[in-house]
Amino acid sequence: MADDAERIRALVEQWAAAVHRGDMDGVLADHADDIVMFDVPPPYQGVRGVQAYRGTWPPFFDWQARGACFEIETIDVTAGTDVAFVHALLRCGTPQQLAENPEMRLRLTLGLRKEQDRWVVAHEHHSFPYVDAPEDTTADEDEVRALHAPRGREGRRPT
Amino acid sequence: MADDAERIRALVEQWAAAVHRGDMDGVLADHADDIVMFDVPPPYQGVRGVQAYRGTWPPFFDWQARGACFEIETIDVTAGTDVAFVHALLRCGTPQQLAENPEMRLRLTLGLRKEQDRWVVAHEHHSFPYVDAPEDTTADEDEVRALHAPRGREGRRPT
Repeated sequence: MADDAERIRALVEQWAAAVHRGDMDGVLADHADDIVMFDVPPPYQGVRGVQAYRGTWPPFFDWQARGACFEIETIDVTAGTDVAFVHALLRCGTPQQLAENPEMRLRLTLGLRKEQDRWVVAHEHHSFPYVDAPEDTTADEDEVRALHAPRGREGRRPT
Repeated sequence: MADDAERIRALVEQWAAAVHRGDMDGVLADHADDIVMFDVPPPYQGVRGVQAYRGTWPPFFDWQARGACFEIETIDVTAGTDVAFVHALLRCGTPQQLAENPEMRLRLTLGLRKEQDRWVVAHEHHSFPYVDAPEDTTADEDEVRALHAPRGREGRRPT
């Protein structure tokens, strides 16, 4: 399974590099037709199927083309015989955004299946944590609060 | 593996029920010592280790005690021989929050390992999607934006 963990790590690193250079074929190379992605923006029920998954990327590529990064910082692979999962932290934002909020990271979880001796990504979950707005520190807990933007992936949101 | 999928589904349903009744022993019953949780709020690098994981729950239990729900709506289990992952959508909020935003769902991904014929949760990723604020529709894409609160799990945030 050490070999599987290495194969999966390489797969994720190649996928992230494809994302960063805006290479759609590379982004989709190891993804299952039935992928379910929980993306940073809605829909709440997730992005379902590889065609819908494909559709989420062009706005993100545009945002990156204007200077944003998408770099794996840490990656942790748990590889079984036929199923695996990965959690990772990524630097994802414009230089200005990361300068203003140096600790900001994109959290990424992947679920993979082995099919005919090949690993495929069947699930992705991307998120930024919610950060309370400073002006909000005296708000009642039950109150609906305004939150800080994560300051990343704006280009990803559907417009 | 059908049996494993059923066992994991039952594990997750029992865990969610324990969360909802504020039963800490039940919440921790099937969790690995080295769990890594990406929670709704920061820290960006995740909550690491079962003691830190335990510490995230009391504020959430308090919030639920005031009327919030934590109910699995859909659950999808991919169980291998020795590793599994789960993605699920949950209704999570106060009745008022869910009335104002009926489509709001908590997205949940779990990673599990089989240890001595027993499944344990080694990873959790909880998030709400980011939703643009209505007043934000004319903002430049590169601008740091204010976003809507997810209107759920306020009690979970560290204070």
